[in-house]
Amino acid sequence: MDLPMNRRLLRARPSGIRRFTALARATPGCISLALGEPEFPTPEAVKAEAKAALDQDRTHYPPNNGEPFLLEALARFGERRYGLTYAPEEIIVTAGATEAIYIALTGVLNPGDQVIIPTPAFPLYQEVAGLAGGVCRFLDTSRDGFQITPGRLAPLLNQRTRAIVLNSPANPTGCAYSAASLAAVGEAAAGRPIFILWDGVYRQLAYEDCPGPGEFRELRPQLILADSFSKPYAMTGWRAGWLMADAPVKAQLQKLHQYTVVSASSLVQTACVRALEEDLAPVVEGYRRRRDYACRRLGEMGLPFRRPEGGFYLFPFIGGFGMGSEEFCLRLIREGGLGLVPGACFGCEGFARLSYCCREETLREGLDRLEAFLKGLPEGPQAIPRSLR
Amino acid sequence: MDLPMNRRLLRARPSGIRRFTALARATPGCISLALGEPEFPTPEAVKAEAKAALDQDRTHYPPNNGEPFLLEALARFGERRYGLTYAPEEIIVTAGATEAIYIALTGVLNPGDQVIIPTPAFPLYQEVAGLAGGVCRFLDTSRDGFQITPGRLAPLLNQRTRAIVLNSPANPTGCAYSAASLAAVGEAAAGRPIFILWDGVYRQLAYEDCPGPGEFRELRPQLILADSFSKPYAMTGWRAGWLMADAPVKAQLQKLHQYTVVSASSLVQTACVRALEEDLAPVVEGYRRRRDYACRRLGEMGLPFRRPEGGFYLFPFIGGFGMGSEEFCLRLIREGGLGLVPGACFGCEGFARLSYCCREETLREGLDRLEAFLKGLPEGPQAIPRSLR
Repeated sequence: MDLPMNRRLLRARPSGIRRFTALARATPGCISLALGEPEFPTPEAVKAEAKAALDQDRTHYPPNNGEPFLLEALARFGERRYGLTYAPEEIIVTAGATEAIYIALTGVLNPGDQVIIPTPAFPLYQEVAGLAGGVCRFLDTSRDGFQITPGRLAPLLNQRTRAIVLNSPANPTGCAYSAASLAAVGEAAAGRPIFILWDGVYRQLAYEDCPGPGEFRELRPQLILADSFSKPYAMTGWRAGWLMADAPVKAQLQKLHQYTVVSASSLVQTACVRALEEDLAPVVEGYRRRRDYACRRLGEMGLPFRRPEGGFYLFPFIGGFGMGSEEFCLRLIREGGLGLVPGACFGCEGFARLSYCCREETLREGLDRLEAFLKGLPEGPQAIPRSLR
Repeated sequence: MDLPMNRRLLRARPSGIRRFTALARATPGCISLALGEPEFPTPEAVKAEAKAALDQDRTHYPPNNGEPFLLEALARFGERRYGLTYAPEEIIVTAGATEAIYIALTGVLNPGDQVIIPTPAFPLYQEVAGLAGGVCRFLDTSRDGFQITPGRLAPLLNQRTRAIVLNSPANPTGCAYSAASLAAVGEAAAGRPIFILWDGVYRQLAYEDCPGPGEFRELRPQLILADSFSKPYAMTGWRAGWLMADAPVKAQLQKLHQYTVVSASSLVQTACVRALEEDLAPVVEGYRRRRDYACRRLGEMGLPFRRPEGGFYLFPFIGGFGMGSEEFCLRLIREGGLGLVPGACFGCEGFARLSYCCREETLREGLDRLEAFLKGLPEGPQAIPRSLR
């Protein structure tokens, strides 16, 4: 007997990032620079707060949208970091930024609505939009230094456009959008019923000052911010993030939050408040050092790339070796003993993502393996995109 | 500017249970028997495991579907408790049973598909089905002792029927389905493309042996089990549950799990294994004592009810006082200082839900207040449903 299931779910693809990470793990002797997860444990002070929460029996249902003390801390954080004022009543503590992005896109899209996704992009946006019945319109930024230009944005805009997804600094490029990129988006959305979904999970790991969601201050009713404790505080396994949105939008999205997860975990929430007090300067310095090292090594190998402004990914061009990014990464795992993620997983052929959120010796060994693998290939990189020259 | 959002979300209603719980909390001097949450903290041994997980830096991404050791423990648990064999690869650790129910209904329904929901019912099923574009067909059990009869089920079945939701022992009645009820469902689903979603979150709190999901052994490809650590182990705030389904169904649902929450929290998962080893006999005895006490008191007040076979709810008939259940519960909060949840929130007028998962002194005080409130009302209960006489 045929058991029908949801047609959009049948079409959804499992995460390619997870697939290549799993393949690297399952390959004997292979090391991985594939998964975007800090190799470090959560800071001791944050773990201590979670233990204290357990000692205080904070094991009961928290309020659906989060503990008031965390919502207040996040409101202050938003003011300080984004220059945007959200009341505690405009914030939802979520099961990671993933849930925030899921409820945001599912909550605003109707079937047939269009979502503009600049590529390369974290595949979650496309899959969630598809599950919601949305139609993805991809904006290729790979020929413009991973920036958004009015010229490429304009042809994608129409009556059905309902959302534009921005991730800055970005996964997989590490690049931050310039003020000009954000201005192009702001002009496109102004006066139109278009939401701007800002995925800011790498923002606290920016190496320099870069334009943020505060650029959309005047479009506040259309702005939805998703953020996470995972990356800056090495809390990936805790599953804690948050969403900020104008009161009427948040009032709708909180119903979806209630009916998907009820609330984020209670014992995690006190720890999250402590995390917000962490001094991230040494963490950012550590990633900057790794970025500088990895950029130097990639340069020596002759692989073109854009220098990341934040986060912990590099997205070098690996076209010109006579194979697609999937084949390149499969062979790299099998022959070179190194796991990377193909650019195809991010909608951008000819590239591969390298995560440098690992121990420095792992990064060195990984880059040594990449270099050795490249030396064994018949040809060097060709047809370098103009924006990377 | 009008900002359109998802039309189904705009129609979704926030939880009435949470609304009445919040109202009781906000009313000075009011006590609450409204929320279905054990008043006790999580057992010490379970909390100790979470602390050990933190000491071991289990703060990283777990595998999407859960830690292998927990999946194996759940497979053994399913075999022992349900008499159903699910491989670890057929299990997903979820952010509570809520997520399991969300991904199950969202994952199987297409717009226009019908879901049969016996009422009174936990409102989550209806809301999630609605968000998925499903059409709810309600099966009123209040005239049949909260049991399912072939006669009432048959008219609801048609070509668009895709799922039947069962919750036993049930929220809000505490009643368990009889073998005859489950046989009626089994006969309806056999040979038809209909999923049976079994919400078993109160099953470990059954006071006696009652028919379980093992009755559907021969319909295994159509069966989806949702369960939770919340109620039996007083772990509501942890947000941990699980889903079991035949491999091809689970393979689809895990994509939705990945794109809504990524995974359940890593530090929670070791604690969950320890929870499964807890001896629940004293917990069940405690609830049985409360049930017996509350049943005696309701009987003395002249309120008709069905004696619960499990869980920690009573669903007395409060019709016949010349007001609907919402008005009854609002007045009870304001005039009587006691929070209950109106039957209307469960699609069943004339009743109110009372949770007895609290300290015995709270239960006694709550029932004293209910008795005093009833004495002040002009009329006693009338028009008692035949099944409760």
